[in-house]
Amino acid sequence: MASPAKESPITYSQLADLEKEFDDVDREIIRYQAELTRPLYEKRQKFVDQIPNFWALVLEQAPPEIDGHIHPSDSQVLLTSLTSLWVSRFEIENGGTGNPRSVAIRFEFAPNAYFEDTVLEKKFWYRRSKGGWGGLVSEPVDIKWKPGKDLTGGLLSMVKAVWDEEQAAAEGSNGAAKKGSGELTPKQKVLKNKIENTGVGGQSFFAWFGYRGRAVSAEESRITVEEEKQQRQLRATSSSSADQQMKETAEDEDDDDEDDLEIFPDGEMLALAISDDLWPGALWFFKEEGDGQSEDDFESEEEGDDEGDDDAPQDGSPGARPAKKRKA
Amino acid sequence: MASPAKESPITYSQLADLEKEFDDVDREIIRYQAELTRPLYEKRQKFVDQIPNFWALVLEQAPPEIDGHIHPSDSQVLLTSLTSLWVSRFEIENGGTGNPRSVAIRFEFAPNAYFEDTVLEKKFWYRRSKGGWGGLVSEPVDIKWKPGKDLTGGLLSMVKAVWDEEQAAAEGSNGAAKKGSGELTPKQKVLKNKIENTGVGGQSFFAWFGYRGRAVSAEESRITVEEEKQQRQLRATSSSSADQQMKETAEDEDDDDEDDLEIFPDGEMLALAISDDLWPGALWFFKEEGDGQSEDDFESEEEGDDEGDDDAPQDGSPGARPAKKRKA
Repeated sequence: MASPAKESPITYSQLADLEKEFDDVDREIIRYQAELTRPLYEKRQKFVDQIPNFWALVLEQAPPEIDGHIHPSDSQVLLTSLTSLWVSRFEIENGGTGNPRSVAIRFEFAPNAYFEDTVLEKKFWYRRSKGGWGGLVSEPVDIKWKPGKDLTGGLLSMVKAVWDEEQAAAEGSNGAAKKGSGELTPKQKVLKNKIENTGVGGQSFFAWFGYRGRAVSAEESRITVEEEKQQRQLRATSSSSADQQMKETAEDEDDDDEDDLEIFPDGEMLALAISDDLWPGALWFFKEEGDGQSEDDFESEEEGDDEGDDDAPQDGSPGARPAKKRKA
Repeated sequence: MASPAKESPITYSQLADLEKEFDDVDREIIRYQAELTRPLYEKRQKFVDQIPNFWALVLEQAPPEIDGHIHPSDSQVLLTSLTSLWVSRFEIENGGTGNPRSVAIRFEFAPNAYFEDTVLEKKFWYRRSKGGWGGLVSEPVDIKWKPGKDLTGGLLSMVKAVWDEEQAAAEGSNGAAKKGSGELTPKQKVLKNKIENTGVGGQSFFAWFGYRGRAVSAEESRITVEEEKQQRQLRATSSSSADQQMKETAEDEDDDDEDDLEIFPDGEMLALAISDDLWPGALWFFKEEGDGQSEDDFESEEEGDDEGDDDAPQDGSPGARPAKKRKA
């Protein structure tokens, strides 16, 4: 990277603090957007509930980050039984003051040949690690597969069992089963072997329900955010440029053990693709469904600018495919 | 596209109206975001003004939609003389109540061997055509090239001359030179031939200053928006489902003549890539500059999630590469 400090009086930390200010604004924008769009999503839901297979059709038109994870057998389940999809920013609902980046993705299913569940909800918490990482973490959600129908080949249940074991160990203050604490428990070993013997690209979409992400607790995240805020305030009030020794936080120990026990490494990316792309763009993807390459769009009024390489309407046009993200 | 109306009581126009409601919210989000980020962009500018070649370095790291239009000769001009870049939502500044999607992109240059101008500003107005199209239109901005240095090979000046001729004709209520009105004027013919003989992909970045986009006047746009609003209100207050005869607006006459006189068909896309991707993400692109594939990021605190395929940090992490767009 270029070195501003060598050639100018600007320090790394000044730029980093400015980025964090942009980040604060971005969080506020997400919050405001969630507030304004919520009634529209409710209205949309009332409409699309009346359209048979709406969500399945939308998923068929999903962008590659999603579509690439939906295997033919997954597709069969989704197309025959998915009845509803809902994304919520659960930490800011009902007056909540949590992180607007946390999302819950809830699927409802009609009775089907694969599993007993009628609701599968996966929650993602936005966390910051003391090492500086920020992103979505989650907890495994098990699925009650019908005999011989487990599309994850038992992997999801193993992940859940390991998780439960770790939770129990943590409660008993016995660190033995704690994720990444060194020696693996027998259950962890079995899971690790199973993951190693399953091609990651060969994972069912439903393995995503087992995604955990980094082991960052709510407490660690809270402390990290708090400390960062204090440091920023300190730098903002101090005119000293001797802030080069800003807390160069410990290198984020990218724990190999953690990765070994992760069954769905793309889990965060898939969650974001659903929450920030598929969910806001559902009507757009639905319109695309069956549209193929033809120009007879849903409605001529909604036509995008055809000049681009992309079939998608341009940003800014009323029928535009929404953005994946909405950062400042 | 799927046919909701055949299988459900939902009509096309209900879905279209809902999309427009999302669109209204999106406009409000852009407005709010512009308001919140403006002081941060000003602060950023003060910082980056002290970093030599900041914008040139950012452009070097620009995403392909931008980078693909910067030829080696363009790059030389930009790297040696671009001193400042500023994007404004000019229709909503200083209390303006125009469209927050309209953008002005202003480049400042040090004296250089290529042209006399020290400021080149290109404005893009968000317009809606009566045929239903929505997008950015612009006016050609000429460049005072030094002798033998015109990177557009005279094309930009031709576009400007044709534009001026059309404006004069329009003022004189003489439609002869009006864009797309049938017979081409001699100047238009020359321009058309010149464009045909220049590979579109071979255009200099500076040819973008000649981008016009569709011939949609402010008046046409205003009337279109007004009529749409009235129709929506009518549908909202009427409980009749006989709205199938909603104004199926005239097929957008995608005038071939218009395209023939457009020297930079990707002009809107490039404008959006600059305003919605490069501009908000400048610090991020700068950090990338010279970073190559190495992991020693600008600041360890800012590291993204390395688990993804992409080098870019994930959405949501504080150092995340901002989104191109921020639609609801």
